[in-house]
Amino acid sequence: MGVVLHKGENCGFTDKTIIPTPKHQKSGGKQTIFFNNPPKIIGRMSVVGEKEGKGPLSDYFDKIVNDAKWGEKTFERAEIDMLMSAIRGSIESAEIKEEDVDMLITGDLLNQLTSSSYAARDLTIPHLGLYSACSTMSESLAVGSSFVNAGYFDTVVCATVSHFATAERQFRYPLEYGCQRPPYAQWTVTGAGSTVLSSKGSGPRITMATFGKVVDFGINDLNNLGAAMAPAAMSTLTALFEETGSEPGDYDLILTGDLGKLGSDIMRDLMIEQGYFLGQNYIDCGNMVYDVTQKCYQGGSGAGCSASVINSFVLDKLEEGEYNRVAYLATGALMSTQSCYQGETIPCISHAVVIER
Amino acid sequence: MGVVLHKGENCGFTDKTIIPTPKHQKSGGKQTIFFNNPPKIIGRMSVVGEKEGKGPLSDYFDKIVNDAKWGEKTFERAEIDMLMSAIRGSIESAEIKEEDVDMLITGDLLNQLTSSSYAARDLTIPHLGLYSACSTMSESLAVGSSFVNAGYFDTVVCATVSHFATAERQFRYPLEYGCQRPPYAQWTVTGAGSTVLSSKGSGPRITMATFGKVVDFGINDLNNLGAAMAPAAMSTLTALFEETGSEPGDYDLILTGDLGKLGSDIMRDLMIEQGYFLGQNYIDCGNMVYDVTQKCYQGGSGAGCSASVINSFVLDKLEEGEYNRVAYLATGALMSTQSCYQGETIPCISHAVVIER
Repeated sequence: MGVVLHKGENCGFTDKTIIPTPKHQKSGGKQTIFFNNPPKIIGRMSVVGEKEGKGPLSDYFDKIVNDAKWGEKTFERAEIDMLMSAIRGSIESAEIKEEDVDMLITGDLLNQLTSSSYAARDLTIPHLGLYSACSTMSESLAVGSSFVNAGYFDTVVCATVSHFATAERQFRYPLEYGCQRPPYAQWTVTGAGSTVLSSKGSGPRITMATFGKVVDFGINDLNNLGAAMAPAAMSTLTALFEETGSEPGDYDLILTGDLGKLGSDIMRDLMIEQGYFLGQNYIDCGNMVYDVTQKCYQGGSGAGCSASVINSFVLDKLEEGEYNRVAYLATGALMSTQSCYQGETIPCISHAVVIER
Repeated sequence: MGVVLHKGENCGFTDKTIIPTPKHQKSGGKQTIFFNNPPKIIGRMSVVGEKEGKGPLSDYFDKIVNDAKWGEKTFERAEIDMLMSAIRGSIESAEIKEEDVDMLITGDLLNQLTSSSYAARDLTIPHLGLYSACSTMSESLAVGSSFVNAGYFDTVVCATVSHFATAERQFRYPLEYGCQRPPYAQWTVTGAGSTVLSSKGSGPRITMATFGKVVDFGINDLNNLGAAMAPAAMSTLTALFEETGSEPGDYDLILTGDLGKLGSDIMRDLMIEQGYFLGQNYIDCGNMVYDVTQKCYQGGSGAGCSASVINSFVLDKLEEGEYNRVAYLATGALMSTQSCYQGETIPCISHAVVIER
């Protein structure tokens, strides 16, 4: 894969890069914001579908719904319901009311943010719609934290969702077509996650955010998104390390969004080239969400993948004290439903937030 | 139209509402942010297509391109080029370089923000993707101003684009189909606008922003977007007035995004119901961009409509001193390409910024 992935000249691994030499110099870049008044995560909710509910994280999810249509006529309507359930559940878990929320920041994978817009319609909260595909959860946390830290708003809800059936038919083929999936494909997670940020209360704090750049290393296969997104995650994680003077060992967990098995292997290789060795403390949400027996090949993907994992397992462990500092980088593939058919490759992005106990 | 538009009971006009009584009480709402360090608009660029270039604002636009495909193979690729031209032109007009820009905030109407993502790919600037349909220009200015005011970044570029040919085929019918347009339809503007915000330098300042709520009054006709969006503009403008204690006469210009002729007439009526009379100082960008002889029925629409008007005519007049304070509310219809076919109505939003000399 390495050769396919690299545009530049220096693609080869050398003996030197196998024993990594972390770089600590500041790049002078400005991708990272440090929060002086770090917002606290005072509430959260994860909701997933049947398949995810049978996976390794089953015990951590707040709500598992076995009916893929949630009793609705369409999968799209079910996706809206799932997002709404996560948003309302997170507000409830924060022990506040809808009218206490100053801003709702959401996005999803559907054309024109269908799920977000229709969920926001039934809430009386000012709404900010974001799109960075599967990177939307960390993008919304980064923007939400920026607003709370600046004192603009006290309480902000950040949420996102994805649904296997809506994503497949929008980006690839209708399910009825029964298209065979290549072995490097991932499975879009049916799931939603919602996080309540507040200037008050207690809980894990978001201490910094790194905004990503759009990176395109030339992948044009809509089934190979892990490979497409890994360079974006590398770009943002390198910026985070350089701008904060930190290194992999400074984090109890470094968590990418949905690179899957292949994508996270590529991510490790790319980071070695940058001089950083990612060890046991690096995992990918797409790798965590399904069991190998569930035949999801490289694992999970979708905006709801890392949104449901961060709002269950990861924040559980942060609250319990098992983790003290987590770098969370959701990763998004920004192609459109038609751009690849028009001969384009896949631009990708990754936004990062650091969550501390 | 009034009866169709209203969900609630108190829809009828009475003699009392014809002589309006402005309300000044604070609503206790939190939709508005006041900027203590208002960002300055130090650069900008407007780019439009042939039809817009023949309209009443012809002399104000920075660049008029007569080839709808910009020499490209697809209209989508042309739209990307147009956005890129506006972004690069605005950076140039600010007399800075690409590497001086800390953040790029863009969005557009195409599925998965195609134009934004592919334009951002060719720039080395951290990117924030937003979506609120035709309200994206004011949403990006509101978010960008929030970031600059808080001191997170010094220089932020906000931009958006739309293209008649790509929007028609995505949201309505392919042009080749030759579908007849109803008299209440609007014409998607082929145009882009880009604004450079900075903590330094001089220029008109963005002094406050009001984030909108998603409003749906039950319209489900994809050709009647002005009527669908007017209630969202009413909601946000009322919040702006109430939370700032201002009234229509306090602004030299109140400018909605793309309600068009019918939509802005409805807007006036709705504001009267709220107790505010919008006089000669209220106009709509969709009403300004085409001449009646150009057969665009209710006028222009699209994210590029108000983006190109604000970044040409309006900022010209602000810089020349003809206007001192402008309230700019772009308006967005948030339906997806398939939600209305699934029986949904059209949720809408409007975000506002106040620009002062």
